[in-house]
Amino acid sequence: MFFEGPEKKIEIALAPGQPSLRARGIDYWKEIVAKSRAQILSSVSNEHLDAHLLSESSLFVADQWLTMITCGRTDLVAAVLQLCADLGPGQFQYLIYERKNAQHQEYQPSNFFDDARRLSEAMPGKSFRFGDGDDHHVFLFHLDKPYAPAADDVTLEILMHGIDPQAARVFMSGPQRKKEFIREKSGVWTLLGPGFQVDDHLFEPMGYSLNAIRGVRYYTVHVTPQKIGSYVSFETNCVEDDVDETISRVLDLFKPQSCDVVLFQPQGARRKVRCRYPIKRAVRQSLACGYRVSFDHHFKPVEGAAPAFEIVL
Amino acid sequence: MFFEGPEKKIEIALAPGQPSLRARGIDYWKEIVAKSRAQILSSVSNEHLDAHLLSESSLFVADQWLTMITCGRTDLVAAVLQLCADLGPGQFQYLIYERKNAQHQEYQPSNFFDDARRLSEAMPGKSFRFGDGDDHHVFLFHLDKPYAPAADDVTLEILMHGIDPQAARVFMSGPQRKKEFIREKSGVWTLLGPGFQVDDHLFEPMGYSLNAIRGVRYYTVHVTPQKIGSYVSFETNCVEDDVDETISRVLDLFKPQSCDVVLFQPQGARRKVRCRYPIKRAVRQSLACGYRVSFDHHFKPVEGAAPAFEIVL
Repeated sequence: MFFEGPEKKIEIALAPGQPSLRARGIDYWKEIVAKSRAQILSSVSNEHLDAHLLSESSLFVADQWLTMITCGRTDLVAAVLQLCADLGPGQFQYLIYERKNAQHQEYQPSNFFDDARRLSEAMPGKSFRFGDGDDHHVFLFHLDKPYAPAADDVTLEILMHGIDPQAARVFMSGPQRKKEFIREKSGVWTLLGPGFQVDDHLFEPMGYSLNAIRGVRYYTVHVTPQKIGSYVSFETNCVEDDVDETISRVLDLFKPQSCDVVLFQPQGARRKVRCRYPIKRAVRQSLACGYRVSFDHHFKPVEGAAPAFEIVL
Repeated sequence: MFFEGPEKKIEIALAPGQPSLRARGIDYWKEIVAKSRAQILSSVSNEHLDAHLLSESSLFVADQWLTMITCGRTDLVAAVLQLCADLGPGQFQYLIYERKNAQHQEYQPSNFFDDARRLSEAMPGKSFRFGDGDDHHVFLFHLDKPYAPAADDVTLEILMHGIDPQAARVFMSGPQRKKEFIREKSGVWTLLGPGFQVDDHLFEPMGYSLNAIRGVRYYTVHVTPQKIGSYVSFETNCVEDDVDETISRVLDLFKPQSCDVVLFQPQGARRKVRCRYPIKRAVRQSLACGYRVSFDHHFKPVEGAAPAFEIVL
């Protein structure tokens, strides 16, 4: 059974003086998540952040901002529109909706153009495609409103397709595969900085999700190890001067056939991203909402030719 | 309005001793083409081959074989199933159905898996994917029956995405744009060998198709110059020892952002394909129906980074 790992993501920051998002309580967030057709499986909290593991990816809620990521056949925009209705769209200072190109768009309830039209009915926005239309790309819709991200507001995404079969095997479920086994064997926990509180989940029959938080910083990793359509996403807002090393360590673990590296940073910052895989496409765009976004599509070079993949119907 | 240039293709060879396909006459082929949701626009013939230009691509009919290519939102498999019903599937010695990954699969009436299931109900077959599932690829279904292609039965496809805007402009329609203009300015006619009979069509508001035949040899070129989703396919069975030069000349004309080069040749032949663009993936597969198929995905290297593409809803 095919599972669509590539995600949709929303980031929202409230306008100054709005009531806390966290204070709305878990039942409210359960309803919002349900709107997207997902469920909250478990949660961890610290003094700044609630991190919810979802049946399809993750939700992080702070007092003044949230990040929600969903995969599979979810409808993240429905959750956003519910938030708009509840909070009033004028209460957002910043909103960005990002969507990775799907492997099987025909199994999705909507495409990006549908999504952007629905969002546009609720707020003024601009839409972009980063990357070639016939190749890996991410779509992005943002609320067209000035915003000034803090100097340390940097988010790194590493979106990986075609996971090394041996690396993927660790994430398959079964009687021998416990969370402890993954923690020990997968190496994912070695990617986290010190002092992070972790919540992880092993899906049946396969798949793995991890949230980790420390203060306002988070890591989130989602592994779709399926033989067909294998995919891993790694995302963090804990970006120091070690971006290149982080990318390198993530690629060492998953050895993907290809990866897209996406970096959001405040305009004016000129953090560079390097990856040891060869590059096929690079896109740089400053957005009217204060971020500069980079998208790089990389691929693993192969020696010689491979046989075709036989499809069993 | 988005137009899906990437094609579906069928090749059929009759078992020995079957009545001529050409002898079925133009009205029969009009019906078959209509089954796929396309129409015959014009036709040219020689003593071996009828070449029909379609509203969506091309149909070549010889006495004992045919090649049909359709793009857009056509349903080529419906035409194949009609042929099966009319001729009896046992009368095919060889059948191959090929489908390029679509840019907007969600707008298609079926995906390859649907197609292969429908074909499998009519005949025993095998299915393959050439290229990564998350990247450029072609799917292929073939009738699982021994076949021995002639030594000179070689077919070259060059499937190009992201056409150079200046090259694409020549194919836009309008009051100044006549077929003569295209013939003179596009350079497409310089790709044809000497002595080919040509039939071409300029679509409104844009787009261009060309069939050219000489004996049993054909060229077929289809240009989707649209700014969003620009695409050109070039295909020929007129493959001498100049494959590399042909590829080079085709790329010179269209300067695409990426291209897939597909070559069918008899097993045992070991014709190599070279392309001056860097290569991302190479696939080689010998099929139980007697062909060896190569698929190479190439891309145009870019200097530095590009801005994001702004989407106007």
